[in-house]
Amino acid sequence: MERVPILRIGDLLLVSIQVDLQDQGAIALQEDLAEKLSATGAHGVAIDISAVEIVDSFIGRMFATIASISKLFDADTVVVGMQPAVAITLVELGLDLGDVRTALDLDRGMKILRELHVRRRGPAAGGEESDDVAESVVEAP
Amino acid sequence: MERVPILRIGDLLLVSIQVDLQDQGAIALQEDLAEKLSATGAHGVAIDISAVEIVDSFIGRMFATIASISKLFDADTVVVGMQPAVAITLVELGLDLGDVRTALDLDRGMKILRELHVRRRGPAAGGEESDDVAESVVEAP
Repeated sequence: MERVPILRIGDLLLVSIQVDLQDQGAIALQEDLAEKLSATGAHGVAIDISAVEIVDSFIGRMFATIASISKLFDADTVVVGMQPAVAITLVELGLDLGDVRTALDLDRGMKILRELHVRRRGPAAGGEESDDVAESVVEAP
Repeated sequence: MERVPILRIGDLLLVSIQVDLQDQGAIALQEDLAEKLSATGAHGVAIDISAVEIVDSFIGRMFATIASISKLFDADTVVVGMQPAVAITLVELGLDLGDVRTALDLDRGMKILRELHVRRRGPAAGGEESDDVAESVVEAP
């Protein structure tokens, strides 16, 4: 069985979905991701689905499950690269992606993950929550 | 035919190979990559092969071809995430990867690409080649 690789980019994880995930593949991905989150302490997960052309309720639920798992490791989840037809299908299916954020491409998705991290933790790791400070950092170019 | 997505991370491109690439797939990837390099002006290409378990002379040549194409767009190429068995096979096949650099994982590969870029261009984009300046920047943490 082919496993979807989970790549580390700094303190973020990247999952690029290129193959049709069936039950077993999705479960393996969730297990691998939980292990990688635990091992790396990453604060964000970006799931690239630019190669995904067909989406069903199964894969929609998988995103929500991954986001829920990530949340338990204090990490946010962003789905990036969604094709227009996939977006329409998700809406037509009435799927709720739960805690999943979306972004146009990987660059913007990684920016969102970093902003969410700063917003929650403050600019310095371990800093107290401070909306004022976080905001000023988020606005910086 | 499934196409391998090419992701942009800042001024680098990332290709994550997860499916067995045959002739058509490899040619499509090379074409897509050339177009993306031309469109983005990226200065580096990272090819993740952590999901590749079997390698033959065809895929070995593909890496070299991709590196040659990238070079024409003034971009470096790094192959990352090679499994031990793949490394052994490449040596046993006596394959020369040409201009392809390798790195243990994506993080290190991206660091190498940035260092190569700084070394060639100097710290400021468009700067003159200056080994002294470039070296001092490369040594910085």
